[in-house]
Amino acid sequence: MAKALVVYYSKTGNTEKMAKIIAQELSSAVNCDIQSVTDIKADDLLNYDAIVVGSPTYYGTMAADIKRLFDESVKFHGSLDGKIGGAFSSSANVGGGNETTILEIINAMLIHGMVVQGDPKGDHYGPVSIGSPDERAQQNCRRFAKRIAKLIKSLAVK
Amino acid sequence: MAKALVVYYSKTGNTEKMAKIIAQELSSAVNCDIQSVTDIKADDLLNYDAIVVGSPTYYGTMAADIKRLFDESVKFHGSLDGKIGGAFSSSANVGGGNETTILEIINAMLIHGMVVQGDPKGDHYGPVSIGSPDERAQQNCRRFAKRIAKLIKSLAVK
Amino acid sequence: MAKALVVYYSKTGNTEKMAKIIAQELSSAVNCDIQSVTDIKADDLLNYDAIVVGSPTYYGTMAADIKRLFDESVKFHGSLDGKIGGAFSSSANVGGGNETTILEIINAMLIHGMVVQGDPKGDHYGPVSIGSPDERAQQNCRRFAKRIAKLIKSLAVK
Amino acid sequence: MAKALVVYYSKTGNTEKMAKIIAQELSSAVNCDIQSVTDIKADDLLNYDAIVVGSPTYYGTMAADIKRLFDESVKFHGSLDGKIGGAFSSSANVGGGNETTILEIINAMLIHGMVVQGDPKGDHYGPVSIGSPDERAQQNCRRFAKRIAKLIKSLAVK
Repeated sequence: MAKALVVYYSKTGNTEKMAKIIAQELSSAVNCDIQSVTDIKADDLLNYDAIVVGSPTYYGTMAADIKRLFDESVKFHGSLDGKIGGAFSSSANVGGGNETTILEIINAMLIHGMVVQGDPKGDHYGPVSIGSPDERAQQNCRRFAKRIAKLIKSLAVK
Repeated sequence: MAKALVVYYSKTGNTEKMAKIIAQELSSAVNCDIQSVTDIKADDLLNYDAIVVGSPTYYGTMAADIKRLFDESVKFHGSLDGKIGGAFSSSANVGGGNETTILEIINAMLIHGMVVQGDPKGDHYGPVSIGSPDERAQQNCRRFAKRIAKLIKSLAVK
Repeated sequence: MAKALVVYYSKTGNTEKMAKIIAQELSSAVNCDIQSVTDIKADDLLNYDAIVVGSPTYYGTMAADIKRLFDESVKFHGSLDGKIGGAFSSSANVGGGNETTILEIINAMLIHGMVVQGDPKGDHYGPVSIGSPDERAQQNCRRFAKRIAKLIKSLAVK
Repeated sequence: MAKALVVYYSKTGNTEKMAKIIAQELSSAVNCDIQSVTDIKADDLLNYDAIVVGSPTYYGTMAADIKRLFDESVKFHGSLDGKIGGAFSSSANVGGGNETTILEIINAMLIHGMVVQGDPKGDHYGPVSIGSPDERAQQNCRRFAKRIAKLIKSLAVK
């Protein structure tokens, strides 16, 4: 059975709430673990078919703790090639850098050779929450997780 | 007296509303023109000390009509060096690409050698509106215009 | 048999050269068409399983002719969901905006719900050429096409 | 006299070489300090009129050590408003993420309200080096420093 990891950094709890919603939805379709970035090592990423990364929006890009995870992953560069990736972010404000945060995580995933998919209807690049996830953000998290699960299944049949 | 241009493309009228608020506020501090991109030529950009560009969010980047203006400006490449730039965008949804739209316009301005400034309090990269500009978006447009005017004056004294 | 389209805009011929190399390599694995953007309509995109878009680097983002293709595609928004995308660019200089050009095309594809993959070894986001494609750029174009073909096959089995 | 800081992270020494060239050129025009990010605290940023940040390209964005500096700067958020910013990066390959690295640093600076300027002739967003800085990269570093110095003087006159 395909395995997915939701890994996040959260200080205020908002990104963690998003992570839990996404992991719960993913769990109904695939084997899914959820971890704070402070509790895992870069090597752990190797065990999964899909990696979903959540970060608060800190100066328009991912938190340093998340960035460190990517920096450390250079030791097995090439080994995430073909795995599925996705990203989400919580921020204080609209127009406050959450899109750029998500896209930076996606860029790092592309450099690893990972496969990502956008969404024509929900939050296009990945779910965003302004402050604590409201109903709109929660719906987008669930929708995002369903699409990740579908992509995992499409690619896993190979 | 310093001269500023607000140039925009608008189909639904939302970006135009933002343009008018910004131009009105700028007019209280500097000489300011406002034009739809369909009514100007690239050469017109040469007449201004500051150029503020507004576009709806179309697939996460500026509308083709705005892009064409930049593409045509290559004939006087280098002549906008040191001028002040700013960008704003209206979009249908939160997380729908308005940050990337603004940043693409800013990137084009940087390639022209223009000077841009962010904002630590308002919409950081430039004002965004979700649909028709509500009170939050209107305030951010006015705040943005005041900061552009201040930057024009700081640089114009040289 | 899966169908791929390589669509490009080219003025100096450099992007066209990259397009031809990519299309030739794709043709050995899937059914592949190659078209200048001036010869197709947005609706034509609907006929393909994978769409690879090439643009010269104009002010750090795609040429207006390519942008217009995306803007026009809004009429069938949602219909490209799940298709595979990829992008490439030629530019005049290193550090001249080719990465941002490729990423803007990828952003537009993500907003369409398309699936994209990076590369851990070649040009990470998509092939870039500085001027006319040299041997390095040509190799990256072929490598990119092989990876697109592989992704098409992985996803097509569903 | 205006004060500038060049702060960098470097593991292989390539980014440090760029930092030294930029700092040397800046020193001929303004009072300039140069520091490894491991030797300064976020508060130190408050003492300068211009802050130039250099990072190797790690997964298309700044090194975690540089990111941490920005994350820690949130405690005095708003205090860098109006200061001048600039960024540079070294990377292993062309098309390897150095533009996105520079632009992420610039995004963080914009969120601080800082003022940045591109370049119509040199490396548009900021100097990039592929590996150890060759003559082309060194020239772009010097050109970049001269433009930063000029911008400092233009804005300092207010």
